[in-house]
Amino acid sequence: METLTQAQLETPCLVINMEQVRENITAMQKIADTAGCRLRPHVKTHKMPLFARMQVEAGASGICCAKVSEAEVMADGGLQDIFIAYPLVGDFRIQRALILARRITRLILAVDSLQGALALSQAAVKAGQELEVRLEIDTGAKRTGIPLEEASLLAEAVYKMPGLRLTGIYTFKGLNYQGTPTEENELAAQEESSLMERAAKKIEALGIKLPDISGGSSPTGAAVARLGKINEIRPGTYIFKDLMLCSEKVAQPSEIAVRYVATVVSCPREDYAVIDGGTKCFPTDVVLHTAPFQYTAYARVEGREDLLLDRMNEEHGIIRSVNGKTLLSVGQRITLIPLHVCTAINMHNQVYLEEAGKFRLQRVEARGMVV
Amino acid sequence: METLTQAQLETPCLVINMEQVRENITAMQKIADTAGCRLRPHVKTHKMPLFARMQVEAGASGICCAKVSEAEVMADGGLQDIFIAYPLVGDFRIQRALILARRITRLILAVDSLQGALALSQAAVKAGQELEVRLEIDTGAKRTGIPLEEASLLAEAVYKMPGLRLTGIYTFKGLNYQGTPTEENELAAQEESSLMERAAKKIEALGIKLPDISGGSSPTGAAVARLGKINEIRPGTYIFKDLMLCSEKVAQPSEIAVRYVATVVSCPREDYAVIDGGTKCFPTDVVLHTAPFQYTAYARVEGREDLLLDRMNEEHGIIRSVNGKTLLSVGQRITLIPLHVCTAINMHNQVYLEEAGKFRLQRVEARGMVV
Repeated sequence: METLTQAQLETPCLVINMEQVRENITAMQKIADTAGCRLRPHVKTHKMPLFARMQVEAGASGICCAKVSEAEVMADGGLQDIFIAYPLVGDFRIQRALILARRITRLILAVDSLQGALALSQAAVKAGQELEVRLEIDTGAKRTGIPLEEASLLAEAVYKMPGLRLTGIYTFKGLNYQGTPTEENELAAQEESSLMERAAKKIEALGIKLPDISGGSSPTGAAVARLGKINEIRPGTYIFKDLMLCSEKVAQPSEIAVRYVATVVSCPREDYAVIDGGTKCFPTDVVLHTAPFQYTAYARVEGREDLLLDRMNEEHGIIRSVNGKTLLSVGQRITLIPLHVCTAINMHNQVYLEEAGKFRLQRVEARGMVV
Repeated sequence: METLTQAQLETPCLVINMEQVRENITAMQKIADTAGCRLRPHVKTHKMPLFARMQVEAGASGICCAKVSEAEVMADGGLQDIFIAYPLVGDFRIQRALILARRITRLILAVDSLQGALALSQAAVKAGQELEVRLEIDTGAKRTGIPLEEASLLAEAVYKMPGLRLTGIYTFKGLNYQGTPTEENELAAQEESSLMERAAKKIEALGIKLPDISGGSSPTGAAVARLGKINEIRPGTYIFKDLMLCSEKVAQPSEIAVRYVATVVSCPREDYAVIDGGTKCFPTDVVLHTAPFQYTAYARVEGREDLLLDRMNEEHGIIRSVNGKTLLSVGQRITLIPLHVCTAINMHNQVYLEEAGKFRLQRVEARGMVV
């Protein structure tokens, strides 16, 4: 593959430092291994089979996806053990999942409702297939997931459904973002672990074995693994890290593997300049000046604390200096650190991989795979 | 091409109603024609050559792009007259523009700085090509564009540069979003027109002819055309329309040509439900509960004023009912109206085109073309 020099990068773009990625993969795998916990990384962060393969080669037990279309891309890229951690609802999706299940060694699907499970069961029976499923339990995030008090009833129903093989439960517990972040991560991990332990006990009391108790995210994964009540964690962001993880006190800025490179295209006045990326390049899912993060800019300009990217149009990023002078010039390149790397990567059709000072283009194969 | 029924749509997705698109194209073309003003639609809204061709067939004088990579996609799709309304800075971009200029009938580039113009001039001379350029003037948006007071000086310098042929000036004037929207549009159009007229007069007094005076957006385009001081308008959003244009009082909800279709995947409690799209499906560049729009949700659920999509994770859209009961069920489909259609389309690799009750898949060819 053609390698490029830094000067040849076409901007705006994302650059991923491969050495740092390897360090991040190794560090999380070591945490999981030391705790005797399985690691099943969520690929929503990188959306590229190449990184999923690196994670599995480092010791991950398999991967986790959010959508069936994302899982298909991973299967195309050689991944053989995939959990789609998202209630699999909709006949169009079930049909794709049935085909996918026949292509790879292990596909695990998710249910969190009787209606969803029934549709999956009927489709599996009709196709003459058995589908491995996990039950999603809400441990406080209040999005998908059956409330804890109804979990054993649904587990029993799913267990009895033909065509389905219930092998585990899983959860995603968002942070409450209150208190100091470090304590909050620890508290969230404790609460998640004890709720999942309670759910597992109630279900196993019905005679249903649950080999897989899955939880943990990038902020809470290490604490969850150490607590030992959950036997699989599914962090995603840890592979690249970002300023959000730094805010959550589970990453250092030096561990962030991804940078934006942008070109200054206009400096009409001394107090602001314009770079060649806006809301079609930088994500806006982290809202400025609002809890929990209180960020003042959509990305941090590296080496220039006085510059704020705090106004954007679709292709314009307006950078102002808090000192009244940007000191930027037309044609100059700047690098910026992403706030939320998962949505940043998803804006881009391709990224550059940096290795030993050389760069190469890499397509983000599962970008936009929302089905 | 294979046609599909509504039941076959894979969600989450965007559906574009072709009849409404034709109406919207025709209406804006009529406004421009009646005013004797040229219409050069901005393709950033749709990012698909098929719609650009429809616009040109309806009478548009050419198209407008933001980026050279977007323009390349349009050229691949048969478009022959393209204005890249964005300062063309960066040697990588200039080289691509030089190649593009040789492929199509007319390519117009943009400059707003001496440095940018010099680099373009030198590259054109080196390649033995002449590049048609327009000068961007800031009429109040404070992003790219040379301040009005410096415009004639820069125009004179550009005019004298070898390899460049200056044929016009252009501007984008954002709204201030104060006062009532209708008055504001009219006032913005008046201010923009008079500033551009003044700039043109000062430059033409130097003996430089400016056949193209370009401005106007979807909210202000009609008023700008009627005023008659600007002879080309570049609206984009009018082709599909959205709730933002309705807020700006230049569209009716019935004229919006684009809908989201989403599937309810989880109804864990009666007061909220989860649909299969989140921040990787719905854009978040319109911030809730903030000026100027004060939206309370990331999209409007059609036919259900009580439902609010006001919380999202990457693949989860959490819908709550202000009445405490969503009355939604797992597997149900809902349609939603986008706030900002330009960034909505850009989230998606493909969309469905709806015509006479039939649907077909269409790739968004220029999605993510940020270079």
